[in-house]
Amino acid sequence: MAYLTGFHAIEERIKACAAGCVLLAAKPGPRAREIAALAVKQGIRVLRTGTTELDRLSPGHRGLVLEVNDGGEPSIFTLDSFLESLGDKKKVLAVMLDEITDPHNFGAILRSCDQFNIDIVITRNKRSAKHADIIAKTSAGASAWVPSAETANLPRAVEQLKEAGFWVYGADMTGKALYDTDLSGRVCVILGGEGRGLSRLLAEKCDALISIPSLGKIDSLNVSVAAGIVLYEVTRQRLSDRR
Amino acid sequence: MAYLTGFHAIEERIKACAAGCVLLAAKPGPRAREIAALAVKQGIRVLRTGTTELDRLSPGHRGLVLEVNDGGEPSIFTLDSFLESLGDKKKVLAVMLDEITDPHNFGAILRSCDQFNIDIVITRNKRSAKHADIIAKTSAGASAWVPSAETANLPRAVEQLKEAGFWVYGADMTGKALYDTDLSGRVCVILGGEGRGLSRLLAEKCDALISIPSLGKIDSLNVSVAAGIVLYEVTRQRLSDRR
Repeated sequence: MAYLTGFHAIEERIKACAAGCVLLAAKPGPRAREIAALAVKQGIRVLRTGTTELDRLSPGHRGLVLEVNDGGEPSIFTLDSFLESLGDKKKVLAVMLDEITDPHNFGAILRSCDQFNIDIVITRNKRSAKHADIIAKTSAGASAWVPSAETANLPRAVEQLKEAGFWVYGADMTGKALYDTDLSGRVCVILGGEGRGLSRLLAEKCDALISIPSLGKIDSLNVSVAAGIVLYEVTRQRLSDRR
Repeated sequence: MAYLTGFHAIEERIKACAAGCVLLAAKPGPRAREIAALAVKQGIRVLRTGTTELDRLSPGHRGLVLEVNDGGEPSIFTLDSFLESLGDKKKVLAVMLDEITDPHNFGAILRSCDQFNIDIVITRNKRSAKHADIIAKTSAGASAWVPSAETANLPRAVEQLKEAGFWVYGADMTGKALYDTDLSGRVCVILGGEGRGLSRLLAEKCDALISIPSLGKIDSLNVSVAAGIVLYEVTRQRLSDRR
């Protein structure tokens, strides 16, 4: 069970998928009333409740809490079913996250995944329910619809992706310049966790390592910024047909 | 910028002169804690950070790194003195932040400014002291050395930049694709605050508006991710000499 409190996140989630949602409202202002009306229109139950109740569920709420029973999320794949669903699709962009545990970074990456319309996010660990709210909020709601797959074994997933015709690139400071790498076709980019970077096993399985230019004193971008830049570069190459 | 790692060296430097020092500490033992206490007493900022971060700054550290900006704090300009300092420098990258108040975003942007070695960050508001710590931490220390200028009047600053031969670009969803814009020469990019975007007055003063491709359901990247992408694109064009 997750609890969303950001008005924008709630609205996006309601629009994307009403299944499994209940809206709890205490002393709603005009904006909250507007969202409640939308919820009713989408067939979502709206319950009047007290502020104390909402405080208990999710401190920091602004008078509305959307309770989401995650079994209603429509876009969760297994890796097998995702690969099957591709048919002969030629341009595919998959993102693999290797131990990105900070929910703010995770959410910001999902927001970029939406922006660049990636095909799937592959992670190992189940997102912990207690962070679902932070992720949903930081992602501005995108966590509700960005397609995702969870797998117990990321190196095995890399093998499967390669068999399915993907080129697998790991983001790493030692890699070749991103903009000098051909990122067309079926591409999977792997991003490692804050501080630690890519695990060695995964790095070794990559077809190549790619890097973002680093001209400063410290060699480390925030991982969500790095993810945004890599996804931008893939998109730029695809839209501009030049490198 | 220098990085001291010897406990003795750090201690001496702290006693001699606190100006321009920031102490970065990871998993401090008793001796390191003693030094951190001394630093606090001398009015030096102490930032908790990870071992990986220290490894990157100065391999061979023992859990403490004293970052010393030897000129005191030389990197705070007025806009006038910054423009004067340019001489006939042809490639200059300035970043203007319009009401970016969230310290996490501000810090992450400074970290990207370091990564891409921008020439100056121009802001209106004085950074509030109570947030300096969050900014320093989120910026991984970059706030100590990224050159900056503060000005009471951003639209006036845009005029000055234009007079000094800058092309001024505002990041805005309605703009021309970033990668189709020539970002060579003297360039200033303006980023607007979370949610609100560029103020109208500033947008009108820009030579052009530029946008990041948006293929998703929500039209909004996190502002620090957007900043990273714009700075990456300027850098890419400069390094690869093609657009």
